[in-house]
Amino acid sequence: MISKEVKADLKKGSWVRQMFDRGAELKKQSGEDKVLDFSLGNPSIEPPQEFFNGIKELLDEAGKGKHRYMPNAGFSNIRAAVANQMQKVHNLEFSDKHVVMTVGAGGGLNISLKSILNPLDVVVVLAPFFMEYEFYVKNHGCMIRKVDTNEEFMPDLEALEAAMSDKVRAVLVNSPNNPSGAVYSQEVMNGIGDVLKRAEKKYNRTIYLVSDEPYSKILYDLAEHGSVFKAHVNSIIVSSHSKDFGLAGERIGYVVVNPEIKNGEELIDAIIFCNRTLGFVNAPALIQRILPRLYASKDSTADYSPLKELACNILREANYEFIKPKGTFYIFPKSPLANDLEFVDLAFKNNVLLVPGTGFGRSGYFRMSFAVEEDTLLKAKDVLKNLADQAAGG
Amino acid sequence: MISKEVKADLKKGSWVRQMFDRGAELKKQSGEDKVLDFSLGNPSIEPPQEFFNGIKELLDEAGKGKHRYMPNAGFSNIRAAVANQMQKVHNLEFSDKHVVMTVGAGGGLNISLKSILNPLDVVVVLAPFFMEYEFYVKNHGCMIRKVDTNEEFMPDLEALEAAMSDKVRAVLVNSPNNPSGAVYSQEVMNGIGDVLKRAEKKYNRTIYLVSDEPYSKILYDLAEHGSVFKAHVNSIIVSSHSKDFGLAGERIGYVVVNPEIKNGEELIDAIIFCNRTLGFVNAPALIQRILPRLYASKDSTADYSPLKELACNILREANYEFIKPKGTFYIFPKSPLANDLEFVDLAFKNNVLLVPGTGFGRSGYFRMSFAVEEDTLLKAKDVLKNLADQAAGG
Repeated sequence: MISKEVKADLKKGSWVRQMFDRGAELKKQSGEDKVLDFSLGNPSIEPPQEFFNGIKELLDEAGKGKHRYMPNAGFSNIRAAVANQMQKVHNLEFSDKHVVMTVGAGGGLNISLKSILNPLDVVVVLAPFFMEYEFYVKNHGCMIRKVDTNEEFMPDLEALEAAMSDKVRAVLVNSPNNPSGAVYSQEVMNGIGDVLKRAEKKYNRTIYLVSDEPYSKILYDLAEHGSVFKAHVNSIIVSSHSKDFGLAGERIGYVVVNPEIKNGEELIDAIIFCNRTLGFVNAPALIQRILPRLYASKDSTADYSPLKELACNILREANYEFIKPKGTFYIFPKSPLANDLEFVDLAFKNNVLLVPGTGFGRSGYFRMSFAVEEDTLLKAKDVLKNLADQAAGG
Repeated sequence: MISKEVKADLKKGSWVRQMFDRGAELKKQSGEDKVLDFSLGNPSIEPPQEFFNGIKELLDEAGKGKHRYMPNAGFSNIRAAVANQMQKVHNLEFSDKHVVMTVGAGGGLNISLKSILNPLDVVVVLAPFFMEYEFYVKNHGCMIRKVDTNEEFMPDLEALEAAMSDKVRAVLVNSPNNPSGAVYSQEVMNGIGDVLKRAEKKYNRTIYLVSDEPYSKILYDLAEHGSVFKAHVNSIIVSSHSKDFGLAGERIGYVVVNPEIKNGEELIDAIIFCNRTLGFVNAPALIQRILPRLYASKDSTADYSPLKELACNILREANYEFIKPKGTFYIFPKSPLANDLEFVDLAFKNNVLLVPGTGFGRSGYFRMSFAVEEDTLLKAKDVLKNLADQAAGG
């Protein structure tokens, strides 16, 4: 006898996880090396050498209590180190008081949403979007409202404005975007901020701009990743080091509140409280403590650009239609079959794992992750061409 | 503009955290070494040497992908290692399929509760109780029902039976108990199980026995810690290695489902799903991987018995009335003043930090943690005697 809502959600499941499970079965049958898996958003680049050396040094440090509970917001020197990173990017005055260390961005998003939402509030998301958002919002008795982006996966500001109401408490943006690879410039962010400011006035309520940006360091071709803090004062950034440092399994992330927000102290207190009472308690201690060393090293951030180039070349030569990603490690091409579920199924039958756009709220596309070994991409060259040809002929 | 419910809860706060904040202020004023802090449930015994050596060896291991996402339930060999530990204690057949690795017991409790609760369900707790339970239950739109234990802090089975209803979905027990130090024998657990079985029949619904037992290895004087799995088939154990291995800040715990439960696979699927969608995603990878080494070592578990003996002797000599703890690192004496808040305040004015029983749903008592340095206890000897005398004279 499990929760009715969880039971219903379990049936819906997630396309990524479904592909993971079907893929695991396929790998068992066909052999691991026969399956070309582009379905996962799992970093393929290892953590930097500083991580391994640094952890060993931390373990050798004298002094007690390094693995015990610390304040729920995290170690204050680590919060200060994140604040210092923020200062470089956003050109505002940050201190440790604006930062809460979290169990990844997933944890950070849940405690942020719980802190600002009342039951039945609406959170607007821009499709295509990371489908976990729907669950994160439902966890707090609220619902998402989906607004489509345009053909370049850029926000449709008119549609966004039309989606505003006296129920909307937040707009949740994700740039660099999973699954599209789109990156919002400062101009785009400002456009979103202007819509929110008008809606705040019209409905006389605070509307937060919440930015989920774990891929903010995974940028290509000098793409400009705009600052939500400059776009809207009621703004919160949630991020992690899952992708840039390849530490997805270690669950290290953070929430940063706009230093100029009104009643910011109350909001931070709420976020810290929710970090505690949702059961996270604090971000893992040892992995918090390694961060300053990784920030200090210039070569820490994983560089996916060679894999991105290779993936783009292979897809281009196979005549797939796509927009070159400006960030993330995903490409989101048009499905060669009108029905993306059918195309992903065809790929599956050819031992290629992809995720249908339908799973991200945008049908007619598929997501291909290039967080893989180079060899996997090279092996996929012919079969991807073949799939496109089959689809064209079919 | 924060969530109304969070705003209200923030005001209530937690007595432990309030004492933490007031204590931090006091330490600033009076000097760290002048304040005797018995308010925190933070392990004072360091992790075993195997932890430090083992992590270094794990970092040197060849092979990629060790810090990436793994299945949301955790590494299957680690789940199997926990299952193996369970087998030794509960004498039932366990496999990795019965175990989900979690972000501490706090994470484990939240995903377990979310998996089994429908809105407005009731969870029965036995007072005195760890006050976070109220928030954990409220997170999922439900409420707690408090049932008092007797003078020995043992379950009052008649009162428990009277608290059952067609709204109760779970009874949440915590043995060894924070704050009382009470430990439930198999006979006591069976008594609780019998009440639940009768209520299940009467109300024709599943009622889970959820056991939060992070202190299950912190036992004294050969205390018998009963198995909930033997007491009731619809049962779930949530635990962590925060206390036995001193890893509270590293957030490593697990959920184990009774192998004989009906539809156990569906329940485990729900728990794994909630681990993902509440934003935990998975327990920290590196700290998962150290567990088999700690299980293999006989000297891993922290031994608080010398500190327990010292604390008991000091309190006895100072004429406090208390029941000797059978487990945990807490003592829960009667307050020498009828009003425990006043007594804790008096202690505070004498630079001694305690937590009032009121904060655990049992007024007239106070909680003293002996997870401290031996020196702190020795220094407290005279002032504790003094406080008792002042209270008697007042």
